[in-house]
Amino acid sequence: MTVVELAECFGPVEAELTALEAALGKELRSNSPALQNLVQHISAYAGKRLRPALVFLSARVVGRAPTAEHMKLAAIVELIHTATLVHDDILDDASVRRRVKTVNAMYGNQVPVLLGDFIYAHAFAMSVELPTPEASRVLARVTKICCRGEIEQIFERFDFSMGEDAYLRVIEAKTAELYSASAELGAIYSDATPEQVAALSRFGRSIGIAFQVIDDCLDLIGDEAVVGKSLGTDLEGGKLTLPLIRLSQLLDEKERGELEKLVTEDGVEDRRTKLSERFDLGSALDYSFGRADDFIREATTELDVFEPSPAREALKSVAEFVLIRKR
Amino acid sequence: MTVVELAECFGPVEAELTALEAALGKELRSNSPALQNLVQHISAYAGKRLRPALVFLSARVVGRAPTAEHMKLAAIVELIHTATLVHDDILDDASVRRRVKTVNAMYGNQVPVLLGDFIYAHAFAMSVELPTPEASRVLARVTKICCRGEIEQIFERFDFSMGEDAYLRVIEAKTAELYSASAELGAIYSDATPEQVAALSRFGRSIGIAFQVIDDCLDLIGDEAVVGKSLGTDLEGGKLTLPLIRLSQLLDEKERGELEKLVTEDGVEDRRTKLSERFDLGSALDYSFGRADDFIREATTELDVFEPSPAREALKSVAEFVLIRKR
Repeated sequence: MTVVELAECFGPVEAELTALEAALGKELRSNSPALQNLVQHISAYAGKRLRPALVFLSARVVGRAPTAEHMKLAAIVELIHTATLVHDDILDDASVRRRVKTVNAMYGNQVPVLLGDFIYAHAFAMSVELPTPEASRVLARVTKICCRGEIEQIFERFDFSMGEDAYLRVIEAKTAELYSASAELGAIYSDATPEQVAALSRFGRSIGIAFQVIDDCLDLIGDEAVVGKSLGTDLEGGKLTLPLIRLSQLLDEKERGELEKLVTEDGVEDRRTKLSERFDLGSALDYSFGRADDFIREATTELDVFEPSPAREALKSVAEFVLIRKR
Repeated sequence: MTVVELAECFGPVEAELTALEAALGKELRSNSPALQNLVQHISAYAGKRLRPALVFLSARVVGRAPTAEHMKLAAIVELIHTATLVHDDILDDASVRRRVKTVNAMYGNQVPVLLGDFIYAHAFAMSVELPTPEASRVLARVTKICCRGEIEQIFERFDFSMGEDAYLRVIEAKTAELYSASAELGAIYSDATPEQVAALSRFGRSIGIAFQVIDDCLDLIGDEAVVGKSLGTDLEGGKLTLPLIRLSQLLDEKERGELEKLVTEDGVEDRRTKLSERFDLGSALDYSFGRADDFIREATTELDVFEPSPAREALKSVAEFVLIRKR
């Protein structure tokens, strides 16, 4: 399934996603030329709009037409995601994002620190304009959890004793919480029942985890030209992701020593190629894709509480898309 | 006047400021050891608590006793300030803050990016718990303005055509807005009249501008051991602050060329010493301190709308303190 096909599975909320593009274009417009240029540049970071789609589809799946509040929520979760990308590129020392230069690659670290802060603050400012404080509360909490997850991941770098559970906790915090919040808020602002809200929250969390597992696999084996962003940054930064954790478990002691050396030693050039050449990553990747698959199955099961509808089918397709990204 | 003497002029809100320390200690407590260590470390950044004092004194000066809401507001503005410091130290590549190592000096740039984001998000989360959205609205707006000011300052680096007005606009945005918001919110949450709110907002803005002017002078001529933070970072980063702008105006063409060369040339060692040795900074500094003095006078005049009270005297003393920092 390509991105075009993903857009097709967004069918039930296509009009809303189109309107969102215009809304996002307006939101960050600035009369400061310096800021306007930056905002213009990062509009190229626009991705698949998965989180806004979750907001809109959650409204649809509980039988509501998305409202102006959903539009605002969709813009807010996308802006928070964008702020995270801008800051993540500093963390990862990444030079390419969606086939354009990252802000840090263009201007060093100062500008993206401030630009990310600005976008976060704008998203919070938007959430305060909603009639109830629910969204502000959820989004501030999610941002805190996300930062905590990233901080913990940094302090766990190079720690080969980290197991799968610790890894899953980190990616749940740093990635899945915002997916979960997107689906949850879409439901909350549609007067969904507590059961529906909880099911959509779990749906979002599970696909978020699956998404990050796949992302972490792509960081090791993906093609930058296809994925469109700097890869190998986890490995360079010593982040032990699921495929590496699994690989380490599958190796004998001597090989494990070599793996640890490859990951931890200073000044190793092109670790990614060396990793693939020296080790048989196949089983570790199969295992990781299998775990992603498990989470997608869990996500899909959550949708059973809803009546069959185009929106429910679309949510299923979104879940499947997360898996198919691996190709 | 020393910091101890400043604490004395906080007399009317001493009890509140003491309670604030306990509140701040609790706020960021985390069950994540990595995060808890960081929070513990940056508790050493604690400064003079000027912004919380403005929140409390604004309540007192309009005749109210500070409430639990003021306590929350005071903690929020201090946390936003703290987040700004953590991110500023990345921008300035600073190694020392309040006589302890900066987070970037200890861990590189990744951790302080996330730690600052976490603290901002926590401050927003706290503001959402207030009964009215006024504080969230003001604080999100102030954070946006502050980031925009800092971004503009970065893009105006090394631009010797920048005049005093452009400089004042930048420091108003990056520093004075939060002072202004602190005083303003203290008044708003005390049911002050619109005139009182506006007067306190202008008071905060003026002392914020004066504070930053003095700070920028200290960056050029202060003693790191006395000021307690990395100095000369503006000069290293090519930030043209008021004393430099004024100096440039006072020089003849040949000297101005030398100044521009000293500021802009790559790889110059110890620019600060060279600047002092080569140029007579005296008049430029006198002028800058004089401008700070002007803003303090303006600030003090704003207090005329209030009845005489210990709180009004305290606000005057706070304004005077900002000036006396220069020594």
